[in-house]
Amino acid sequence: MVNDRDIALAHALADAAGQAIRPYFRARFDIETKPDSSPVTEADRAAESTMRRLIEAEAPRDAILGEEYGEKPGTTGRQWVLDPIDGTVSFMAGRPSFGTLIALLQDGWPVLGIIDQPVIGERWIGAIGQPTLFNGTPARARRCADLAEATLATTGPQYFSDHDGAHFMALASRCAHKRMLFGGDCYNYGLLAIGHVDLVVEAGLSLHDFAALVPIVEGAGGTMCDWNGDPLSDASGGHVIALGDPARLDDVVEGLACNH
Amino acid sequence: MVNDRDIALAHALADAAGQAIRPYFRARFDIETKPDSSPVTEADRAAESTMRRLIEAEAPRDAILGEEYGEKPGTTGRQWVLDPIDGTVSFMAGRPSFGTLIALLQDGWPVLGIIDQPVIGERWIGAIGQPTLFNGTPARARRCADLAEATLATTGPQYFSDHDGAHFMALASRCAHKRMLFGGDCYNYGLLAIGHVDLVVEAGLSLHDFAALVPIVEGAGGTMCDWNGDPLSDASGGHVIALGDPARLDDVVEGLACNH
Repeated sequence: MVNDRDIALAHALADAAGQAIRPYFRARFDIETKPDSSPVTEADRAAESTMRRLIEAEAPRDAILGEEYGEKPGTTGRQWVLDPIDGTVSFMAGRPSFGTLIALLQDGWPVLGIIDQPVIGERWIGAIGQPTLFNGTPARARRCADLAEATLATTGPQYFSDHDGAHFMALASRCAHKRMLFGGDCYNYGLLAIGHVDLVVEAGLSLHDFAALVPIVEGAGGTMCDWNGDPLSDASGGHVIALGDPARLDDVVEGLACNH
Repeated sequence: MVNDRDIALAHALADAAGQAIRPYFRARFDIETKPDSSPVTEADRAAESTMRRLIEAEAPRDAILGEEYGEKPGTTGRQWVLDPIDGTVSFMAGRPSFGTLIALLQDGWPVLGIIDQPVIGERWIGAIGQPTLFNGTPARARRCADLAEATLATTGPQYFSDHDGAHFMALASRCAHKRMLFGGDCYNYGLLAIGHVDLVVEAGLSLHDFAALVPIVEGAGGTMCDWNGDPLSDASGGHVIALGDPARLDDVVEGLACNH
């Protein structure tokens, strides 16, 4: 389903995005404000433009969906989903924990994904049916015998509605409280895939925020699903679970279902 | 007050700590649990031991206060305050945003400080009366004309009591909500010193958590104080403000004082 040419193109996209982004990291730049008030930078747009040009040259009939420049239809059933800078706020604050997300979807399902951190040079790639690689080495999520020992990560409480936040806190109270991590954006999922974080739970994610993560987490032995334990879909409403040890999934879904 | 020999020793301490820590980063290691349940690692202890040996060799009459091995009295009015890994939770999760904190106090006041990130090779050093250096280059906090535009960072909501959390949220509501950052530990203060974060507000910090930060933030043109705007002291109860633009201090203290 994924061939070597797709993988080579995905790497080339990440290389090109990194080259576009690095000059802007910790440089002074104008922060614009989108209608929804989220910050957009020149770096975001430069990285997406360069990736779109490459896809149009190498796979002109594939569809493209990018965070900044929207949708381009295709005729192959394949769609490249791009988030040039996941973690724009971290990027603007000079944290090298943002990432470029690149996904290839076949008939709507992510079959190939990259998380690329271009400043410190870290790249995760996952492809359906293949082991996830972290900088070229097989990555493996870790076992978690007991949710009470789990390291739980999420980007920030401000991304939950009050209702979602209450469910999240119910789950958090069953995890290792002293090891809970905030911040991190896509980087948390990369750390899960290499066995240092057990669980990432977020809300409000768009397809471009999570599509690339699915093959990476699953190719490392973990699982991704929505807050009910169902496969991610439009019906998930952006409620995402990534779990290193699928044996704990019932515990996680049960923890999230509580609200007291 | 700070001489070249002190600065050279501080750099040597950071070098030695980094050498001790790096082999443990993203390695498998046993997590112990201290009486207060915070995680301690072998890396913490290895780094503090090596720093203490160096100080005992180079400045045997100076006092030492370390997070892991406690207090050694001295006779010079000088005290080295060490936090081998600030951000142990981040360290254990494989995030390269923890830091080694090294401070030299003269008669109880921090006159020299280092934040060292040994994995990605970033070091901030501040000494009273000298400009702060980031990897050898002068660092400068940025101006902030309006608190509503300020990027506010804090490690996590779980480090606030309910009471402190309410005051923090009152302040946060006056800052740039969409640019608020969680996670980061000492790294946030480093980003403030190079002009990418405007404000860091935390509670529950110990002397070893903040002593090194004071010369770094102030040598970059910023200010550090407690939540009342008073100089940091035992009476601050670990309530810390770091602010890149001292002109906004009244706004910050006023924001924290509100609770509705």
